[in-house]
Amino acid sequence: MEEPRSGCPINLAVEVLGDRWSLVIIRDMMFGNRRHFRDLLHHNQEGIASNILAARLQRLTDLGLVTRGPDPGHKQKVVYSLTEPAIQLVPIIAELGAWGLRHLPASRPLAVRARLLACGGRELWDEFMDELREQHLGSARPPGAEPVVARLRAAYEAELAAERAAS
Amino acid sequence: MEEPRSGCPINLAVEVLGDRWSLVIIRDMMFGNRRHFRDLLHHNQEGIASNILAARLQRLTDLGLVTRGPDPGHKQKVVYSLTEPAIQLVPIIAELGAWGLRHLPASRPLAVRARLLACGGRELWDEFMDELREQHLGSARPPGAEPVVARLRAAYEAELAAERAAS
Repeated sequence: MEEPRSGCPINLAVEVLGDRWSLVIIRDMMFGNRRHFRDLLHHNQEGIASNILAARLQRLTDLGLVTRGPDPGHKQKVVYSLTEPAIQLVPIIAELGAWGLRHLPASRPLAVRARLLACGGRELWDEFMDELREQHLGSARPPGAEPVVARLRAAYEAELAAERAAS
Repeated sequence: MEEPRSGCPINLAVEVLGDRWSLVIIRDMMFGNRRHFRDLLHHNQEGIASNILAARLQRLTDLGLVTRGPDPGHKQKVVYSLTEPAIQLVPIIAELGAWGLRHLPASRPLAVRARLLACGGRELWDEFMDELREQHLGSARPPGAEPVVARLRAAYEAELAAERAAS
């Protein structure tokens, strides 16, 4: 990172994360397991522009929050992975979601995952981080429980179906 | 707020808070109890510029995170206060500090408050939010324990003194 404005850890985090897109891209990598540029571009519900996505991925890579690697399935393709520091953003993202839920006009189906994540608390976040470590860093996850990401997705899809049925 | 990019609560929070200064100003109001423009300008350790501070305070006021009121002591002066939604940013700011502490080059005296806040967990954050409600919203705080802000300041000053003695 460039010469920071101060050594206050809150300021340092704001210098790294305080823009309109970085955390949204990391959210898509975490919850949607989107790892290719095209997926991140075309499935982003905020309509990120291609040049902004490219610049932000480059910056996140330079900062050590994202790594680029070859896709084992497609030699021409690049896979993006979260690093350990990026995986440890789960509590910040969960708290941002919880706050957005309480104070901003969140839409119902999109809110259900944030609500589950907020209610699950640190225990669920730790479990989710272990899953992300498995997906992004290749570390083994303790076997057993249904993955958090599958639970969040199922809740989201149930909410979407309920909303469709009601309209 | 303007028409949001999406109704995802994480995105909504990023749209409101995702810039390089808003959370730093709120941090100064929370931890330093800085309530006047001059205090926020001159004591900001990141060297915020006057025009940026004015624009950010205006935006935070428009968003309902900060209110402007007359200073009972000085009729010409304006006092800025945090609103309830802004006070509820404490967990986000605590998590940002905890993350900055682990992953970025935080300076020792400035890190001690973030460390205490992170270690205190939700119980300490709730106590701190009650104090902020008393200071900013005029609500009564349960009597008893030494205020969190005083504990954080004492720990910071002890660290600063230790660092001076060592150099």
